[in-house]
This record gives sequence, C-alpha cells and structure tokens, in this order.
Amino acid sequence: MVKNRTNCLLLTNPANVTYATGFLGDDSWAAITQHGVYLLTDSRYTEQAQSQCPNCRIIERTDSLPHATGKLLKKLKSVHTVAVEKSTSLANFEALKKNIDARVKKVVDIVESERTSKDAGEITTIKKAAAIAARALRKTIRHIKPGITENELAGTLDLQIRRAGARNCFETIVAFGPNASRPHHQPTTRKLKKKDTILIDFGVRFNGYCSDITRCFAVGSPTASYKKAYQAVQQAQAAAIKMIKAGAGIKQVDAAAREAISKSGLPVYGHGTGHGLGLEIHEKPFLNQQNKQKLHPGQVLTIEPGVYIPGKLGIRIEDDILVTKTGHKILTCHCPHRLALSV
Amino acid sequence: MVKNRTNCLLLTNPANVTYATGFLGDDSWAAITQHGVYLLTDSRYTEQAQSQCPNCRIIERTDSLPHATGKLLKKLKSVHTVAVEKSTSLANFEALKKNIDARVKKVVDIVESERTSKDAGEITTIKKAAAIAARALRKTIRHIKPGITENELAGTLDLQIRRAGARNCFETIVAFGPNASRPHHQPTTRKLKKKDTILIDFGVRFNGYCSDITRCFAVGSPTASYKKAYQAVQQAQAAAIKMIKAGAGIKQVDAAAREAISKSGLPVYGHGTGHGLGLEIHEKPFLNQQNKQKLHPGQVLTIEPGVYIPGKLGIRIEDDILVTKTGHKILTCHCPHRLALSV
Repeated sequence: MVKNRTNCLLLTNPANVTYATGFLGDDSWAAITQHGVYLLTDSRYTEQAQSQCPNCRIIERTDSLPHATGKLLKKLKSVHTVAVEKSTSLANFEALKKNIDARVKKVVDIVESERTSKDAGEITTIKKAAAIAARALRKTIRHIKPGITENELAGTLDLQIRRAGARNCFETIVAFGPNASRPHHQPTTRKLKKKDTILIDFGVRFNGYCSDITRCFAVGSPTASYKKAYQAVQQAQAAAIKMIKAGAGIKQVDAAAREAISKSGLPVYGHGTGHGLGLEIHEKPFLNQQNKQKLHPGQVLTIEPGVYIPGKLGIRIEDDILVTKTGHKILTCHCPHRLALSV
Repeated sequence: MVKNRTNCLLLTNPANVTYATGFLGDDSWAAITQHGVYLLTDSRYTEQAQSQCPNCRIIERTDSLPHATGKLLKKLKSVHTVAVEKSTSLANFEALKKNIDARVKKVVDIVESERTSKDAGEITTIKKAAAIAARALRKTIRHIKPGITENELAGTLDLQIRRAGARNCFETIVAFGPNASRPHHQPTTRKLKKKDTILIDFGVRFNGYCSDITRCFAVGSPTASYKKAYQAVQQAQAAAIKMIKAGAGIKQVDAAAREAISKSGLPVYGHGTGHGLGLEIHEKPFLNQQNKQKLHPGQVLTIEPGVYIPGKLGIRIEDDILVTKTGHKILTCHCPHRLALSV
C-alpha cells in the first residue's frame, strides 16, 4: 500500500476477499485500511461473517456495495487514496468514484500475487480437497455400469463429494464416447454402452480451496486407437510434470507436453497445459505457449494435456502438482490413472 | 444501436451472450455487427458453439478475449464505434481500448432490458425448470429421516435434479434448526434430529433458464413459535403475490410483505422481497424498498420473505411468479407449501 501511495485497498474479487478475511460467502467486499480490515456484507451473511472473520469489523450494508463503501470511508475520514482492483466492473468503478471523496486508483494483482505461493496451511487444505476427490471418484466408479447416463454419473459423484463435507468448485464434466472431444462437455442423457469410454473432470472445494482432477477410462478393453491416444496423453503429462520445479520456465513446461503429443502424430490440444489452483479453480499462473514467467515454490498447478478427435474420442488426464524448491509433489497421487475399467 | 450511435455491440456478460447467441458455455463474448453476430470462443467450446449457435459466426480464439475482439474488428473494417457493457471488468475494458482502433463507448442494460420481459418460449422453459424442481424435491423428501446430514440431503436433491437432465443454478442451501437463521447457510455435517426444522433453498437450471424455490418444514409437529413464524411468512408472501400485476409499483409489493411480518410482531427480514429470474438466478427487477419502478408483463419474479431469529429459527418461503397484464401466475404451484413433515 505504501508502494502504491494509498491508504485503503478495496477488494472486490471474491477470492481476494476470502484470502484477506476468511469469509466464504458472496456479494461482499473488503476494505483494508490502517484502522483494520472491514468486511462489507449484508444481512444474509452477517452471522456467517461473525464466525468466519473474527479479525474483521463487519458492516451490514443495506444499500449497494459502492454506496456502503462510500459511507464507510467517509466515517473513517483519514482515507486519502483508495486502490480498487481492476477486476471490478466498470459500473461498480464509476459508482465508487461517485460515492468516494478520496482519490480512486486502479491496481492489479496485489492480492493475486500474494495468493500464488501457498503456505503450509493452504497446501494441507488443497491436499485434503484432493483426497476427498480421490475417494469420491473411487466410490463413484462402483456405480458405473452399462445404461447409466452421463447425468446420473455426474450426480452420483457430486453426492459423494457432498457426503465428504465438501462441494463442487465447477460443474462436473462427464462425457461418454465421442462426447469427450468437447473439453467442456455438459452431461446429457447419453447412456453408457457395453463397450464405451468415459471422461470425468471434476473439482472439489474444501474450506474454500480447490482440487481439479480429470480421469479417462475405457469400459471393457480399449480399442487400439483409444489406447494409443491415452498413452500419448499420459506421456505428455509425465513429460510436463518432470520439468516442474521452482525456476522452470512455464513456456517450456507447456511445450514439453505439446511436443510429446505432436511426436505421437496426434492432434495437439488447443487449450493451455494447466493453470494455478487455490481459492479459485483457475488462477495464476496460466500454463500456455505465451507465458514467459518462471515457476515459484508453493505454487499449485494442474497439468492437463489432452487429445481430442471430434466424432471419435477425447482424452485428458489432469493432476494437481505442488512446485517445490527442488522439484515437485503430485497432490493427486491417491487417484490412480486407469486406462480400463471392468464393470 | 442506432440510438447509441454505434455499429458494434460487444457482449461480455455470459447471460447476455447466451441471450444473443444461444451459447451455453463460458469464457466467450459476442459481437453484434451489421455483418452478423460473432461468437468469440476457444477450442474447448468450438463443437458446442457449432451446435448451439447455428446463426452465429464462430471465431475460435487462441489469445485473450480483448485481443481476439481487436483482431475481429480490424478484419471487419467498417466498425467505427464499439459499445461495451459496463458489467465488463476495468482490466478487460482497458485491454479493449488498447486493441481496438474504433471508438469505444460504455453502455448499460441494453440486453438486460430486453431480457426482463420473457416471451412464451422462455416462460415455457422456466415452467419446465420449476416442474423439475418440484419433482426433485418431492422425491428428496422421501429420504428425510433423523440422522441425515445437511450435506447428504443437499446432495440427494442435487442428484434428483441431475437425473431430470437439469442442474443447480446455485449451491443448494439446506439448513436444519437454528442454522436456517443464516439466509445463505452452507450445508454442514449437522444431523437431523427427531424433532427438528428444515429449510431448503435450491435453484434448477434447465436449457439455460432458472427456477428458484425455498421450502421450510417442521419434522414431526412444529412448536408454537415455529408455527407462528411460518404462518407470518406465508401471509407476507401471499400479501405480496396478491399485488403482482403489470403496472404495480415494486416498492409497494415489497412493502406489502414487510408490513405483514411487522404486524405479526416478528423481526422484518433484511434482504429484498424477491428478484427477477431468467438466464441469471438474480436479475432485474430487484424487489426492495428503494426500487421505484413498476412491474411489466412477462417478468418472472421470486417472492421470498422470511423470518430469522439467530440461535432459534429461520423461515423463508419462495415461489416464482409470472407478471401478466391483468395479474400473475404462480409458476411453482406444483411444489406445495407444507408446514410439517411426518418422517
């Protein structure tokens, strides 16, 4: 804040609000000032905020967030410059400028850059989310049999996640057969056939933190082309993971996975090779061909190359990896890769 | 667009993108120009876009959305002014200004104001979402028995929604006993007791459109204070619904519900009395004490007053109402209000 010459940082990005306050609800902003941290919430969340944010002053607002912010800062008097996150909407920014007497400044990545390296407590929580995910998938696999729909399988997995006291951090993707060539397929009433393939991509949120896993299986014995593509994806993922350590170039990690797919003669995926993971399911760093940054210790990344052939197949394998000073640690190692399921 | 002196409207709000294109995925923008409607998406969604948006030109981007927008407009040449939605983030707006040669203008509520009045097809879809919700709740109630956790009950309901080919449009709220005094309670491992109370607030999304229902029950016979509060909420809801017709003042509808609670001597809820419902779970109009607008035919609203007594109880009853020229229609009438459940 000193560097930015401001004495109030206004957080509007929900993950940043959680990071600064511990609050896990929605529709709330945080103001960090020399007088302390204020959480601007509403009556739907007051009780929750009181128990989750013992170190914050909780303001129960009855008007809009920009209005309530203006009122708070007026009361505090000493605020001369307010830094507002660039992830804020134009509409909210304009309303803030109208309601705040102080100077308003735009800032970017203040909290995000703090969030990117996880501390021991955060890593433990992500591990726990990954462990819940692995167990939920293991239990769900028992329900897989010909005739089950994508919807039913997705719902069954989600129920297992709930049972473990966690929840989804994005809508579970279950895709049978050629449906898996759409990387973000939405489950349908498509039924599983006797000889078929399955892609499951799902995220578990536990105490605010996310895990993200994709697994693919052939039901019965895989065809030669499925097996070839599966092995290519596995090799690509292994090649990328092998390179992960503090100081490694992100572009280079991305390239390692793409090269492995390319060498196998299969089409190279259009999406990134992975992304950071934490309070948000997609956060910095983004692993793609353009990113010239290096990895830092404490970052948690997904590595998720894929092969997609429209009308034929889709395969993606995704694990969550902790970057360490000397290498890496696979946080999703309790969730085995299995090419084939016998059902 | 003529009124706004622009020849390109850039949609960045996902619900507006869906409204203009039919696309149900994420991370995509739409550009409406005199040459047609362009959907800027990425390879994760290309196949889905091709099937959902037969009337759009689909651009598979490999760089950021502002970059891809800049490239597209450069190619189209004739665009002199681009209107950008104020719901866009500051960061995206700045990136757009850098990447676009044309004049960039901020606009608000262009598509939202179109979306507020639903046509026959949209109403049919919302009715279907409400019917799925009613059936899912009916089936879920059969699983309620002492010992079930809030998590298990929420997961069971979500599975029923999935089985019907739909999905949640927000995280299901299940609150037992005093937990219900937090209007946006997140389910826990709290077990249902023999004599207990339940609040369930859940949304179903079907073909993009939402329904939103809250029901409360006493398990076994309700206490006198629970019964009193339940009846007060029911009366408040009925008083507000009774007033709904095209031309009615929103403030007045809101006040009718609050007055009924107030008369019963119970604390008046701090949240709004309801909100519009459609492609977004919360959209215009917002029914609160400040809103001076009038209702329009074709709007679909929730009416959801409540009574919350921290440490004691929480009751909210929520239905979805269609505003008609002469009155209203309750779209959630297949989901009965029941004060008590025998389990």
